Amino acid sequence: MAKIAILGAGIMATALTTPLTDNGHTVALVGTHLDEEIVTSIQTTGIHPNLDLKVPAGVTAYQLADAEEAFADADLVMSGVNSFGVNWVAEQLKRLVKPGAKILSITKGMQADEDGTLHILPNVIRKEFGELADQCQWAAITGPSIAGEVAVHHDTCVVFCAEDQEYVSWVADLFRTDHYHVWTSTDFIGCEVAAAAKNIYAFGGGFAGGILDKQGKTNDRYVMYNYTAALFAQGAAELRQFIKLLGGDPATSEGLCGVGDQFVTTMGGRNVRAGRYVGSGVPFSEVRDVHMKGVTLEGVAAIKVVGAALKPLTERGVIAPEDFPYCRYLYQIIAEDAPLVMPWQKFFGGEK
Amino acid sequence: MAKIAILGAGIMATALTTPLTDNGHTVALVGTHLDEEIVTSIQTTGIHPNLDLKVPAGVTAYQLADAEEAFADADLVMSGVNSFGVNWVAEQLKRLVKPGAKILSITKGMQADEDGTLHILPNVIRKEFGELADQCQWAAITGPSIAGEVAVHHDTCVVFCAEDQEYVSWVADLFRTDHYHVWTSTDFIGCEVAAAAKNIYAFGGGFAGGILDKQGKTNDRYVMYNYTAALFAQGAAELRQFIKLLGGDPATSEGLCGVGDQFVTTMGGRNVRAGRYVGSGVPFSEVRDVHMKGVTLEGVAAIKVVGAALKPLTERGVIAPEDFPYCRYLYQIIAEDAPLVMPWQKFFGGEK
Repeated sequence: MAKIAILGAGIMATALTTPLTDNGHTVALVGTHLDEEIVTSIQTTGIHPNLDLKVPAGVTAYQLADAEEAFADADLVMSGVNSFGVNWVAEQLKRLVKPGAKILSITKGMQADEDGTLHILPNVIRKEFGELADQCQWAAITGPSIAGEVAVHHDTCVVFCAEDQEYVSWVADLFRTDHYHVWTSTDFIGCEVAAAAKNIYAFGGGFAGGILDKQGKTNDRYVMYNYTAALFAQGAAELRQFIKLLGGDPATSEGLCGVGDQFVTTMGGRNVRAGRYVGSGVPFSEVRDVHMKGVTLEGVAAIKVVGAALKPLTERGVIAPEDFPYCRYLYQIIAEDAPLVMPWQKFFGGEK
Repeated sequence: MAKIAILGAGIMATALTTPLTDNGHTVALVGTHLDEEIVTSIQTTGIHPNLDLKVPAGVTAYQLADAEEAFADADLVMSGVNSFGVNWVAEQLKRLVKPGAKILSITKGMQADEDGTLHILPNVIRKEFGELADQCQWAAITGPSIAGEVAVHHDTCVVFCAEDQEYVSWVADLFRTDHYHVWTSTDFIGCEVAAAAKNIYAFGGGFAGGILDKQGKTNDRYVMYNYTAALFAQGAAELRQFIKLLGGDPATSEGLCGVGDQFVTTMGGRNVRAGRYVGSGVPFSEVRDVHMKGVTLEGVAAIKVVGAALKPLTERGVIAPEDFPYCRYLYQIIAEDAPLVMPWQKFFGGEK
């Protein structure tokens, strides 16, 4: 049996303790400075307040101050924060792990250089690690996975990815149960790009509902699935193109990490809710500053980073002006409060 | 302006009269022998009873007995029946059209020879036409399109397909409006295979809901989107493989006709409802004979045809025994009342 130390006590990090403890492993769950109340709740009542579930026996929660104790002798170390904490988590992990460490990331997103060059987050962490990076092993979890469903043993199929097959197989074996089904991939880039890109397109999954809300047709006999399906297809095509752009395997877009994850993300969540406001006619700045003030929106963050990067990438001729029309338009909504007038004619290679 | 004659007065055939009449075309909508009441309703009240909407001005409804009058001088002729009526509609159209006829099909499905060889339905109609087939032009409509949404002007993006680009562009122009967005493809086979295959996998879109119903967890905080997303991804992969098997372009699976149409079909409808019964533990034979007796289930029909064909195709070595595990399992459910125990480990190339 192994000991797993996780930095970050959010809902996904905590949900993953279910398959780990089902397999008899022990988990040290370490909260960030933002997780203090969560950790206190788990320590005193056993309940994770945001998941609204009892954390499994076999999990010990630690405050950040006790991280060194928690990470001692860990067989596997996990980055369990969201994309906003990735640089912070890199610094912390660098302090907490030793050469030879086995690392697994669940943080999804991308970062961009000024010239638009995009980076997957595990590589951002690796960069922060400096020379230590090559002395550690790196993997990530991707695929369609709503945290609460994992926590309550609903069937979930995911893909663990890493450059090294032997390493990723070892990590996958730690997690694999009768309900948590794990495939592996060595297309680290492709899987991670898909995981970030699907959040971009989830935002658009809320538009149709908002348009209907505005028209007083929320529960009409004929809703707007055709609209959402068309956006889904365009999103899937751009997700595939992002994988290509960053050097991953385009075929990764066809499976669990691609359309599978895009499907689950379109079914609901905070990004879809934000998109619904926009669909109903609220400028995005008002969604951000009023209706969803303080709510973490990974999709919006991804649109900001990736959408902004498309400009220098186009100027440098890395991509064509007609590439990524949907992502560009989402960026206009987020950055410029563009109203919702879908540029259908630009999609699918241009209407013709 | 053109005159379009449609054989079949079902909801999709009738919904398509919206973009056509928006463009100023006139439509002769001819009911089959099963549509007599629909035609009478349109003739007397203007209402299509199943769509529950007024049919546009510019549409004239005809009983089958008046088909010859309706089809006289038509610029475009449409097969508007479902897959169960394809051989019948072929016979009728053969009688009604002349050499040089321009034909557009909205019938989705496949037929199989005894050795498992699969055929798209436009080719079934062509075969019935004999020598006349080559004297006609053939196209079809594919992509995510719920009929009622088309009828009420909700944005819809579809793909018209044909072997000949000039012909399909002409047909697309007849339909294209500000709400009905049309792309074209010369991958006739790929588009049509995708349209049929998506119905196969829609059935599985109901399983998760049924499982939750059975457990009394229909409205739980944590439902089963991970489950449905995994099935969606496996369905998308098999849809792609079916396109390859029949000689279409696998890339067609990535767009509107593939994952786009699969998305909309998974969102609801009769096949999803049938799958939900199975998810809740009802043997399929009981769904068919009791709960949904008399209901047209295109997806179940597709599973029957295609699922049965996989056996001879495997015996002949055309496909491998491990190909299409999800479709094979759906066939077991439909044909053998197999209980719902998802063979996850066979999916995505085998769990590893």
